[in-house]
Amino acid sequence: MNLWGGRFDKEPNAAIAAFTHSLPFDQRMAQQDVRGSIAHCRMLGHTGIISAEEAAQIEAGLREIAAELPDAGVLTGAEDIHSWVESRLREKVGPVSGKLHTARSRNDQVATDARLYLRDAADGLAGQLRDLQRALLDHAAEHGETVLPGLTHMQHAQPVVLAHHLLAYFWMLQRDRGRLADWRRRANVLPLGAGALAGSPYPVDRAFVARELGFDGVGENSLDNVSDRDFAVELGAVLAIVALHLSRLAEEVVLWNTREFGYMELDDSVATGSSIMPQKKNPDLAELVRGKSGRVFGNLQSLLTTMKGLPLAYNSDMQEDKERIFDSVDTVAGCLGSMTILFRSCRFRADRMLAGTHGDFSTATDLADFLAQRGIPFREAHEVVGRVVKWCETNDRVLESLSGADLQEFHPDFAHAPADITSVRASVRARKSPGGTAPDEVRRQLAVAEVAWEL
Amino acid sequence: MNLWGGRFDKEPNAAIAAFTHSLPFDQRMAQQDVRGSIAHCRMLGHTGIISAEEAAQIEAGLREIAAELPDAGVLTGAEDIHSWVESRLREKVGPVSGKLHTARSRNDQVATDARLYLRDAADGLAGQLRDLQRALLDHAAEHGETVLPGLTHMQHAQPVVLAHHLLAYFWMLQRDRGRLADWRRRANVLPLGAGALAGSPYPVDRAFVARELGFDGVGENSLDNVSDRDFAVELGAVLAIVALHLSRLAEEVVLWNTREFGYMELDDSVATGSSIMPQKKNPDLAELVRGKSGRVFGNLQSLLTTMKGLPLAYNSDMQEDKERIFDSVDTVAGCLGSMTILFRSCRFRADRMLAGTHGDFSTATDLADFLAQRGIPFREAHEVVGRVVKWCETNDRVLESLSGADLQEFHPDFAHAPADITSVRASVRARKSPGGTAPDEVRRQLAVAEVAWEL
Amino acid sequence: MNLWGGRFDKEPNAAIAAFTHSLPFDQRMAQQDVRGSIAHCRMLGHTGIISAEEAAQIEAGLREIAAELPDAGVLTGAEDIHSWVESRLREKVGPVSGKLHTARSRNDQVATDARLYLRDAADGLAGQLRDLQRALLDHAAEHGETVLPGLTHMQHAQPVVLAHHLLAYFWMLQRDRGRLADWRRRANVLPLGAGALAGSPYPVDRAFVARELGFDGVGENSLDNVSDRDFAVELGAVLAIVALHLSRLAEEVVLWNTREFGYMELDDSVATGSSIMPQKKNPDLAELVRGKSGRVFGNLQSLLTTMKGLPLAYNSDMQEDKERIFDSVDTVAGCLGSMTILFRSCRFRADRMLAGTHGDFSTATDLADFLAQRGIPFREAHEVVGRVVKWCETNDRVLESLSGADLQEFHPDFAHAPADITSVRASVRARKSPGGTAPDEVRRQLAVAEVAWEL
Amino acid sequence: MNLWGGRFDKEPNAAIAAFTHSLPFDQRMAQQDVRGSIAHCRMLGHTGIISAEEAAQIEAGLREIAAELPDAGVLTGAEDIHSWVESRLREKVGPVSGKLHTARSRNDQVATDARLYLRDAADGLAGQLRDLQRALLDHAAEHGETVLPGLTHMQHAQPVVLAHHLLAYFWMLQRDRGRLADWRRRANVLPLGAGALAGSPYPVDRAFVARELGFDGVGENSLDNVSDRDFAVELGAVLAIVALHLSRLAEEVVLWNTREFGYMELDDSVATGSSIMPQKKNPDLAELVRGKSGRVFGNLQSLLTTMKGLPLAYNSDMQEDKERIFDSVDTVAGCLGSMTILFRSCRFRADRMLAGTHGDFSTATDLADFLAQRGIPFREAHEVVGRVVKWCETNDRVLESLSGADLQEFHPDFAHAPADITSVRASVRARKSPGGTAPDEVRRQLAVAEVAWEL
Repeated sequence: MNLWGGRFDKEPNAAIAAFTHSLPFDQRMAQQDVRGSIAHCRMLGHTGIISAEEAAQIEAGLREIAAELPDAGVLTGAEDIHSWVESRLREKVGPVSGKLHTARSRNDQVATDARLYLRDAADGLAGQLRDLQRALLDHAAEHGETVLPGLTHMQHAQPVVLAHHLLAYFWMLQRDRGRLADWRRRANVLPLGAGALAGSPYPVDRAFVARELGFDGVGENSLDNVSDRDFAVELGAVLAIVALHLSRLAEEVVLWNTREFGYMELDDSVATGSSIMPQKKNPDLAELVRGKSGRVFGNLQSLLTTMKGLPLAYNSDMQEDKERIFDSVDTVAGCLGSMTILFRSCRFRADRMLAGTHGDFSTATDLADFLAQRGIPFREAHEVVGRVVKWCETNDRVLESLSGADLQEFHPDFAHAPADITSVRASVRARKSPGGTAPDEVRRQLAVAEVAWEL
Repeated sequence: MNLWGGRFDKEPNAAIAAFTHSLPFDQRMAQQDVRGSIAHCRMLGHTGIISAEEAAQIEAGLREIAAELPDAGVLTGAEDIHSWVESRLREKVGPVSGKLHTARSRNDQVATDARLYLRDAADGLAGQLRDLQRALLDHAAEHGETVLPGLTHMQHAQPVVLAHHLLAYFWMLQRDRGRLADWRRRANVLPLGAGALAGSPYPVDRAFVARELGFDGVGENSLDNVSDRDFAVELGAVLAIVALHLSRLAEEVVLWNTREFGYMELDDSVATGSSIMPQKKNPDLAELVRGKSGRVFGNLQSLLTTMKGLPLAYNSDMQEDKERIFDSVDTVAGCLGSMTILFRSCRFRADRMLAGTHGDFSTATDLADFLAQRGIPFREAHEVVGRVVKWCETNDRVLESLSGADLQEFHPDFAHAPADITSVRASVRARKSPGGTAPDEVRRQLAVAEVAWEL
Repeated sequence: MNLWGGRFDKEPNAAIAAFTHSLPFDQRMAQQDVRGSIAHCRMLGHTGIISAEEAAQIEAGLREIAAELPDAGVLTGAEDIHSWVESRLREKVGPVSGKLHTARSRNDQVATDARLYLRDAADGLAGQLRDLQRALLDHAAEHGETVLPGLTHMQHAQPVVLAHHLLAYFWMLQRDRGRLADWRRRANVLPLGAGALAGSPYPVDRAFVARELGFDGVGENSLDNVSDRDFAVELGAVLAIVALHLSRLAEEVVLWNTREFGYMELDDSVATGSSIMPQKKNPDLAELVRGKSGRVFGNLQSLLTTMKGLPLAYNSDMQEDKERIFDSVDTVAGCLGSMTILFRSCRFRADRMLAGTHGDFSTATDLADFLAQRGIPFREAHEVVGRVVKWCETNDRVLESLSGADLQEFHPDFAHAPADITSVRASVRARKSPGGTAPDEVRRQLAVAEVAWEL
Repeated sequence: MNLWGGRFDKEPNAAIAAFTHSLPFDQRMAQQDVRGSIAHCRMLGHTGIISAEEAAQIEAGLREIAAELPDAGVLTGAEDIHSWVESRLREKVGPVSGKLHTARSRNDQVATDARLYLRDAADGLAGQLRDLQRALLDHAAEHGETVLPGLTHMQHAQPVVLAHHLLAYFWMLQRDRGRLADWRRRANVLPLGAGALAGSPYPVDRAFVARELGFDGVGENSLDNVSDRDFAVELGAVLAIVALHLSRLAEEVVLWNTREFGYMELDDSVATGSSIMPQKKNPDLAELVRGKSGRVFGNLQSLLTTMKGLPLAYNSDMQEDKERIFDSVDTVAGCLGSMTILFRSCRFRADRMLAGTHGDFSTATDLADFLAQRGIPFREAHEVVGRVVKWCETNDRVLESLSGADLQEFHPDFAHAPADITSVRASVRARKSPGGTAPDEVRRQLAVAEVAWEL
């Protein structure tokens, strides 16, 4: 029943009840609802709002419910998880269960449950981020000297080493972990005790409840506590950025698995075939991860839009926060888990990567830098090398094939160039600035990343 | 199994399979999948690609499956609904079932199923739009003379009649019906026969299949047929605009149910109480409808984002279209149904509406118009009346209380003003321009709306 | 000044005025504002609401303003374009200008201006869509026999002809034209005459004004007329889908311009170099088109969100419609224009495309279809060919190199296979189902497309 | 010119150049570009990559440019701000200017400029958040005893004090400041020195540059440094949540300015009139702030979508980050500034607020709490009071009018109720739990808020 007491003449319309009830999606917070109720119950006892005996009875009933939940299957028969637990409790301990509702409202209760649930979920996601980072770090450790074409605009730009490339994603995920940690700190504040909106006339001890539930503090303002959904929206934004990073990594997987690139080999166990084309080995998983970014972005938009323009305090619109943020949590968890499996089992093709650099002019900058280091303004050096490239293209030559004499035709200073000036190995070795792609420098970066990963 | 044949060394990883499988959400297209398969099967028989006997056997099996589906509960044991039906068919008719896959691919099959499903769903939504329009029209018929304050900027602007106000929503929904009809025409094109991407080497008769399935035509380009998701995105946009309109209507319900406005009374059966505050009667349903607009907007964003930048032809990202567009369909269906119930059972408070106009200066424009009609430039007339209003405010008077003599203090021409110049009834009666709020004109508009509704 | 008359004690705060004024962005509707005013003025004269002489004076002034606008540069000194035109008109014709404001409000005026402006803009976009289609059709006409690897999941799937691939985009754009046309029909309805919200007490002739301005009809409900922004939201959605299609086409340009694919050559005039890497030739333009989809999607969300939950009638939030829809119009216009230039000047590399099919197993389906056509259930045929592919991969062979004898090792029926069964040319020739990639069929499709283009 | 050197045969197409050039919008980063260049120049001198004299010459030229910029007006004649500064520098110091480009690329330069610009902008926004908080705190200090109806579901729920209500918004803005601070810490990392993507072969001192520019550290990975746009996306998300909070506050302003609520009076200087209705005083500014949330939400979606699926490293799509994040910065700055002016000049109507509580049943919970505190389970107490409310409604009575004897009809324990049990003042006084609305407690909260504000 969606209302208490004698004020209403009619039972709720069944279709409307089906539309407004939240049990189908808020039952995943059942354990959190019980945990929150136990803390509230202890506080009621501890402060003498109810008797110690009543508190003990209620807590015992709640503990039984918690123990039964894992086998309870799909819950039905109530409008929301709070009513479900409440009615189950009444079955167990009788009328005393009604005292649990003292000094508490649905509005502060649901906000508490949701924060507890999302805190747990975010801790899980943080662990999954670390797992994926681990898979990347392991490959990076192995591929500190594997050279591949570095791309900008998807054009061959300068050669880089594979470890360097993989570490770029490590750092994206590291920032994601930072955002999650910031979110946790900000969201980990207790709403319970705010009542329906105005606080409670009972001598509640909110700090006690906060400690019981592992919250870092107590909400400063009851109106805000019941009507704030920043914790959902901000988490939705944090997860959108995770999904963004994963969509980029997934794009690389798709690209590197093409016949044209061929830099990567997926394990058969993570690829899919085709019902019609017997030769196909599709990177479905990566495509889905790429596509699911849309879902997580959309959920963020939903959360923002739903909250737009709502005056204080609680409004039912806020009930809409749950399905969207749960979906973002589930989606990102699925994407992280799948990508970790994929990366743990994939193989990189160093041979194809190196082959990809042949004849790709990706050391042209090295030629220009050589001239610049001899005092020629960079712009001028750039023009000289531009002519070299054009000449090669016209004459169907690759840069690696040019002799010192060939180069001197374009600029006399090339007489002093080292023999391997157009070699990709020399090119990567040279880029030893902090953050650069030189193998020694990347080794250093890897050590820094390992330290960061441990945090 | 997500692949056929002897090309792969390993079974799919179970976690990855769980991530990539679509059966949990595409099983709602089961009937459409069977229907599409029957049409394809008949075509294969009709063209002699398979024998008449084979076709008959397969069709019989499919018909059995269709008959069993209503009681089948939650389907499991396959990666998607197509595989599920296929494997069920094999159980029923044996190896001949394999021939159904001739000249068909998952790519054109899923596009066909989705279009069939959404076409059915959209037809349902069109009917629901009409139902809500009906509820509005019925109230409008009753309230052709009920005057309430018309608002702009949520400030009292000019009086209007309630029928006029409700008809504004009628026309929003009428445009929605138009958009749905346009969508249907554009989306109702058969993808089947496009094969995996390049068409079929079999002598298929696509027009035959289109006729069987009620499609208006056959897709012109097989690459487009398997990779186009305009039908989902455009429907997502159409539904977003429906949700937008409903959010506005819901805002009115919330506002009109406030103690401050009090223009509306919800039936007890559609309102909810509070677990803590015994006096509450909350318009939950309308709040949810308002909030769910966020969901539908976000789904549209998800669909757009997922499709962004995908090269031809099919990519697995496209699998993500279904859950989002299904959610928009379900959400809008729920909102329309609930709002119809709400409007069928609500009561408008004509007394509160009329009372709302007392002393609200909403006939000030009529004073200005009166002067303008006597040849005074409107800007000047506006200034005169501005001074009248200010004088009233300063002296705590209402416009209705001013005598002709009072008005003449501000402009001599008021000497010729009719006695009821400040009356809201006179004001609405005067606005008889086409589309205006004069009761006679609104009666005409209602007749036009009734004709439009029948379409 | 943002208000008229004697009601306010203070001048507007300058910072607030800067925040609320719309002239910086609504001045682009100046011609439409004047055009709408001329029509309104004629109607006032025609109906005798003002004298013929007054109407003539006002119209003459407005015509002067229209003539001056092209050289007027950036307009300043008013809160919005309506006030600017009004004050300019007063300078030209004196106090009679005040009569133009009779029977008209900002609310219906701005809605009229916006519809006129967007109608003009949409007509321009429809023309640009045709231009891009033309460029695609011209390439298609030339490349009816150019074979390239058709991809699904970005894996080589089946060979297709380039004309077929380009026509897929033609049809996307054709649907876009259809959506624009539907929008035009629905949006081309006159709001003017709705007054502030409630209609007009003057004997206005709205049909006259509609005819003058090329509208197909008159708005049915004044409350709706001033508060409806469907015309902006729906156009925003139509343009989002155009941007989606362009992002896909742009992705192909970027991909086909990679060293790895190399299917396309951009003209130097549309590519960009690098300030640091002399060898670079970047497809900037296509990347920007791809990226700008985000902008157009975001604008749509902005429009939807801004309108969410607004009660009737006009609210200032609606002022926010303009910048976002203008930005979508500008962005899509820029993208269409640029892509047309790109496609007009680019060159396709048929040699690279054909080379891309060598050894790619993309005719594996043809082998399976061959067996299936001999009565072997397709699933079984698929498995046989899966083993063929696997054997080739293990033994480093390409499908084209297998002899009839080799194939018979896998299935005896291959004894009857034609010699060219693994040839890509034979493969495309075979797919002659309607919409398929067979050159003859594509030629037919091209003729259909030419007819559709003319519409 | 959009390229350097001799590689290209043709000049850029003018239309394409107009489409791809960023000067129109990136010129607002001119000072940051120069500042970054000065730091880079000093580093080049400090490390001996260029001579001290060269460095001095270049820096002097750059300083001149910085000094000229404030009067430079709209910049033209280059593709982007970097080229503009570069070419201006060449005019000033001649060919030596070319050396500034040593060890630097557009890719790391633009990322540096953008971070500098946004850091400055975010610092400004943080200050504006404080200003608005100040305005709220000042009103709160004044209205610690002003009682108004506290709403949930927009229904009168329980009375609250105005200070409490305003402080709810204070805390929202405080969280916004926290998010901005977290963003700053995370974004304040130097990209310069990453080169085009792979790092630099020059002995650059990135830490030196970081110190010069006030960055907290140096980017760990050059590929990430040039292709990361988290700093824009995360800021976009932070600002979206600010806009969300402002939309809620704006909704209250609109609502409280209605004739029906009448809780607030805007100063004439921040309100607007109507061109047609002389009585209007519209809260335009608040409506715009509410509506502009759509813009800021949409910008976030644009940023996310644009970055979706981009492989490493720099792609031109990323150029699209600037206009959207700049628009969010400008929009939120405008909204914060305007709302601060509004709140500084507005007046609250304590009389109307108190009048709003008359007869609103908002102390019904107090009756139930009274019974509960006497040992009656809350659920039962709730039912009793529900019957009280219903009786009042049926008999047209208000709760305040019930005598003790009246109440005892419903439950005997009411015999012990205090005389003022239905008074709103007693109700607020009772809610003294931490965060509650009791005036003493709110006074304490205000003190806490003042401390937080100082941070």
